[in-house]
Amino acid sequence: MSDERSRSDANEPWKALAELLRQSDEEGVRHALSALGAGEAVRAILRLSAADQNRLLAVLEPRDAADVVREMGEELVADVMEDLPPGTAAAIVDELPSDEQADLLGEMDREAAEAVLDRMAPAEAADARQLLAYAPETAGGLMATEYLAYPRTWRVRDVLDDLFANRDKYADYDVQYVYVIDDAGRLAGVLRPRDLLFAPGADLLERMMIREPLAVETAAPLEKLKAFFDEHHLLGVPVTEAAGRLVGVVLPEDVEEAAGRRANRQFLRISGIIAGEELRSMSLLVRAGRRLSWLSINIVLNVIAAGVIALYQDTIQAVFALAVFLPIISNMSGCSGGQAVAVSIRELTLGLVRPREMLRVLFKEASVGLANGLALGVLLAGVAVLWKGNPYLGLVVGAALAANTLISVCLGGVLPLVLRRVKLDPALLSGPILMAVTDACGFFLVLSIATRILPRLAAV
Amino acid sequence: MSDERSRSDANEPWKALAELLRQSDEEGVRHALSALGAGEAVRAILRLSAADQNRLLAVLEPRDAADVVREMGEELVADVMEDLPPGTAAAIVDELPSDEQADLLGEMDREAAEAVLDRMAPAEAADARQLLAYAPETAGGLMATEYLAYPRTWRVRDVLDDLFANRDKYADYDVQYVYVIDDAGRLAGVLRPRDLLFAPGADLLERMMIREPLAVETAAPLEKLKAFFDEHHLLGVPVTEAAGRLVGVVLPEDVEEAAGRRANRQFLRISGIIAGEELRSMSLLVRAGRRLSWLSINIVLNVIAAGVIALYQDTIQAVFALAVFLPIISNMSGCSGGQAVAVSIRELTLGLVRPREMLRVLFKEASVGLANGLALGVLLAGVAVLWKGNPYLGLVVGAALAANTLISVCLGGVLPLVLRRVKLDPALLSGPILMAVTDACGFFLVLSIATRILPRLAAV
Repeated sequence: MSDERSRSDANEPWKALAELLRQSDEEGVRHALSALGAGEAVRAILRLSAADQNRLLAVLEPRDAADVVREMGEELVADVMEDLPPGTAAAIVDELPSDEQADLLGEMDREAAEAVLDRMAPAEAADARQLLAYAPETAGGLMATEYLAYPRTWRVRDVLDDLFANRDKYADYDVQYVYVIDDAGRLAGVLRPRDLLFAPGADLLERMMIREPLAVETAAPLEKLKAFFDEHHLLGVPVTEAAGRLVGVVLPEDVEEAAGRRANRQFLRISGIIAGEELRSMSLLVRAGRRLSWLSINIVLNVIAAGVIALYQDTIQAVFALAVFLPIISNMSGCSGGQAVAVSIRELTLGLVRPREMLRVLFKEASVGLANGLALGVLLAGVAVLWKGNPYLGLVVGAALAANTLISVCLGGVLPLVLRRVKLDPALLSGPILMAVTDACGFFLVLSIATRILPRLAAV
Repeated sequence: MSDERSRSDANEPWKALAELLRQSDEEGVRHALSALGAGEAVRAILRLSAADQNRLLAVLEPRDAADVVREMGEELVADVMEDLPPGTAAAIVDELPSDEQADLLGEMDREAAEAVLDRMAPAEAADARQLLAYAPETAGGLMATEYLAYPRTWRVRDVLDDLFANRDKYADYDVQYVYVIDDAGRLAGVLRPRDLLFAPGADLLERMMIREPLAVETAAPLEKLKAFFDEHHLLGVPVTEAAGRLVGVVLPEDVEEAAGRRANRQFLRISGIIAGEELRSMSLLVRAGRRLSWLSINIVLNVIAAGVIALYQDTIQAVFALAVFLPIISNMSGCSGGQAVAVSIRELTLGLVRPREMLRVLFKEASVGLANGLALGVLLAGVAVLWKGNPYLGLVVGAALAANTLISVCLGGVLPLVLRRVKLDPALLSGPILMAVTDACGFFLVLSIATRILPRLAAV
């Protein structure tokens, strides 16, 4: 890499990286990545085109490529991995810890994942297949299968001998606790590594272990794991199968990370970004297409809702000012309802509300909707009176906004619960449905009230 | 607690809890909480009124109350703590780990926090004051001060003796690594606890330690910590002051949790829920007030934007159908722009885009805006032609929506970067500003184009 280029690319390290990749300069790529440091390297890699990311993974040693994969995150790297030769991908996956292997393979399409599994080391592949069978946001899906477990009849010195003999292998383990199992592989007890420090070598594990240790079942959902680590400030929790057999360990950071990923997906979906993360380095077709699919639902619902306006042609032609207030009422009701949607989705995520508690939410939201509806209604009525000097116009738009805010806030609060009950995605669908219903209601309210007292408004 | 009540309250455990609190039945409260288990207990506590939550913390032993505090989370419990007698609050805070003490005191108002600090154990208070001085989302603000550090001249057996002598004290520490410091307290090396297991007791720490260990400075921001743990799969990172003195340890789960809290605040703010978490157990005044303050900005901007419509009275009265399409164009542009806002806020959070890279974002969004604008414009034009049979009406609304989608998507992409540059909150303000500008633009586009070709539309 010439000095000039490195200077001119100082602010755009991904360009330098792309150039090195085009030259297949493996040494240069590795050097450039380590010179960048953690944050910058990820930023640079994510800016590369998919083809260059592909080249990057292929050019690096599997071990280094695995580091890149971990830095990019499963969701973003899955597409790139699908396009690698299965043998190359398998070599990289082999270098990942078991829980990340399963996460990554789970994000890839089934066919590509199978091709990779077929080419992995058989023992690793068997482990990964087993983990893949668990639902992603459960203890089974989040657990690592690298843990230390010894029979209850072993002595402290046996354990220390094993630790010593396998210290290279265990160096990659996140060992927080040493588990004790019975003949059937069932979890019997737990020890902290430092307990072994101070114990006589002849002591039996079953004598010194903490009995009936806390554990979770493979099916335990993310919320339960989060509550577990909130209550118990432990560094890991053992995971057991239905029969009590120890099969893995979940670490608190994996739980927090999964919760963060979920919150992030929700954040994007509520704004209408579907099918996972969108980065500006993705192709135009993917980005535009994903956004458009959500917009298409929206425009259909919008057209239907606006149809209400068409029914009141005479009223609007008699009182033109109403045409000005229609979009205001539509937007404001959408905003008020959107707040209620956000609170409900949060409470659902935190497990603070159950999908069937619709009445409680309705009651709680009704009071807020009433208070804010009155405040906003008075405000808008004031604007109308100031503009046109007609108190009846103020009454019409103020009352319509107040009533529609109440409706919209109640609907916004309850809708996510209803969608969850019928197993639809609240984050993705609440917004469009809310907007369509409150638009239609708002237009109907303002125009039907106006029609009723048309003679008093006609002077406007 | 009678059997009947416990049965009838089985689905509403917080009611039983509230009843026990009204009776000041400490034993009963503690029993009820432990019978509920982690997730249910948090749910029940968060449903109590603020007064009952206050009573709960006052009635429990400080150690048990501290567990409740940890389960509720700093943000939610801060208000309750402010209303406790400072002595009671101090006793509870004393039982928390150092990083959580600082988090909690940081969330409380300054006066209440000072009153609590004055009544805490002096050493704990000094630690907490020091941590409070660091910005909340930095290594200094996230670190714990409970860690193990030994002089480089100590031998393995000295460390083991110390560990053994203080095993009760250290039991609460999250010990992942043992740090080695020089005479000035500067970080010199690191050891894994298990390294001590296999070393001869006479070995000097400075001989066996890993030199120049990875560390972060107190000012390191959350993004840097997240990148650190993404790159290095370590169980903790030592934190040093500018001069290299070791002052604390940051654990990966604390980083993930802080990132989750940040994402959550952003999620709520983008929907217009300000000033932190909203739960339906909060008072009506707080909930309605917080939501209303954001809605008030919105309604003002909305009224201004809708003012554009008022300028085109003649056009709308000549072509009524336009009144129907105005809210559609307004809503759809808002949706398209909102997607771009969400992507920009995500990229800002991930550090994938810098606030000054506005041109790059503009270019990337323009292509998506053009593609989706054309698609949506054609759709809406089709609707108009089908409805009124006038191709010119289709042309007007289609072209206006296409152009306005392009504007809105570009603005939505760039706006969060601009707001970040001028140190305003992108999550809170992008929505209202985007909506107002795109509404005004959209109304202007459709109405000004329509005015220009009014004779051809008049038949509608």
